[in-house]
Amino acid sequence: MPRTEEVKQRLRDEQRAKILEAAKRVFARKGLTATMDDIAAEAVVSHGLAYHYWASKEAIVSELVTQALRSPAADLHPPLHTPGTPGERLKSLVRGFVESRRHPEFYLLLDQVLRSPDAPEELRTLVRQRSKQMQEGLRHLIVEGQATGEVAAGDPDQLVRAIFACGDGLLRWAHHDPDDFQEHFPDADIFLRILAPERTSIKEEME
Amino acid sequence: MPRTEEVKQRLRDEQRAKILEAAKRVFARKGLTATMDDIAAEAVVSHGLAYHYWASKEAIVSELVTQALRSPAADLHPPLHTPGTPGERLKSLVRGFVESRRHPEFYLLLDQVLRSPDAPEELRTLVRQRSKQMQEGLRHLIVEGQATGEVAAGDPDQLVRAIFACGDGLLRWAHHDPDDFQEHFPDADIFLRILAPERTSIKEEME
Repeated sequence: MPRTEEVKQRLRDEQRAKILEAAKRVFARKGLTATMDDIAAEAVVSHGLAYHYWASKEAIVSELVTQALRSPAADLHPPLHTPGTPGERLKSLVRGFVESRRHPEFYLLLDQVLRSPDAPEELRTLVRQRSKQMQEGLRHLIVEGQATGEVAAGDPDQLVRAIFACGDGLLRWAHHDPDDFQEHFPDADIFLRILAPERTSIKEEME
Repeated sequence: MPRTEEVKQRLRDEQRAKILEAAKRVFARKGLTATMDDIAAEAVVSHGLAYHYWASKEAIVSELVTQALRSPAADLHPPLHTPGTPGERLKSLVRGFVESRRHPEFYLLLDQVLRSPDAPEELRTLVRQRSKQMQEGLRHLIVEGQATGEVAAGDPDQLVRAIFACGDGLLRWAHHDPDDFQEHFPDADIFLRILAPERTSIKEEME
């Protein structure tokens, strides 16, 4: 009997995970207005079965957001606290930020939560806090990097906003033209140039 | 009588323009789901008067899109055909592209048209063509600028997409946090660094 229970539990977990994955794809495509029926259709399960595993669409959204905020890509701590100069840590942070957009489902969902008036307020607060933390972490490293000369001079808030605009623009593109997005996704180092200080040229040096 | 007709015509034109301006603000704020009532309220005219001047919301959208595509900021010809090196013309194109986002109402509307399933297909085709022309113009100058060494080497399609992602990200930010947007709008030259070639450093030169 315990054996059977174990098998049953594993099957339940698998079904739940399968429906969750389907929901992620549907939300990325249709936004949070997608219904439980859309999710069931995508997962190729019946409406009833979907509700058997998940009490509501809101429960699914909540689980997906929690997962997204727990994902390694959302974790700022490594780049902020690993060894290296501020410029080196900043590079790794921005590369991670850009590269994570190659698989945009989670971010599209977070974005939906932020934008949708139907999303539960507590989830929106969570996502907003996360975004604010990310901006603050980035700003911190930019200011340190400007002090070491590894980052372009100028208003750090503008630099933070420029990097965030790139991330947002990538998401938008991913949402509206996924094939073009996958084909021409820009190398992270292209965006890193936004932060690069001007190197002294020979000519200036000789003047 | 002709005098009176002239005055009447001027008043009609003014009312039409006033409602149009109000519609632009409402669409930027609420999206294309905004109703004729929303527009009338914003213009401080009655529902009936709004319909007297504009047959439908669709007629207003159509006029706004046509205006947007005719606006100087949407015109690619000057930077493509003015004198100067490819790099210089590219700079002026990208600066114009970024700077035009400081007043994002038109772009937010174009974007709404692209994204909204309710927008008339012919308008969407117009906006898409415009965006494609803009991408092609940009790509053309990037390739020429790479040949003269004024633009960073690398896949020109990725560079085009990176610049467009910035423009899109700026719009998104304008839409969702207009105050922060106006306060921290990044200088266009920050985004121009995306295209800047690496200058030869003293060290490399001496090796």
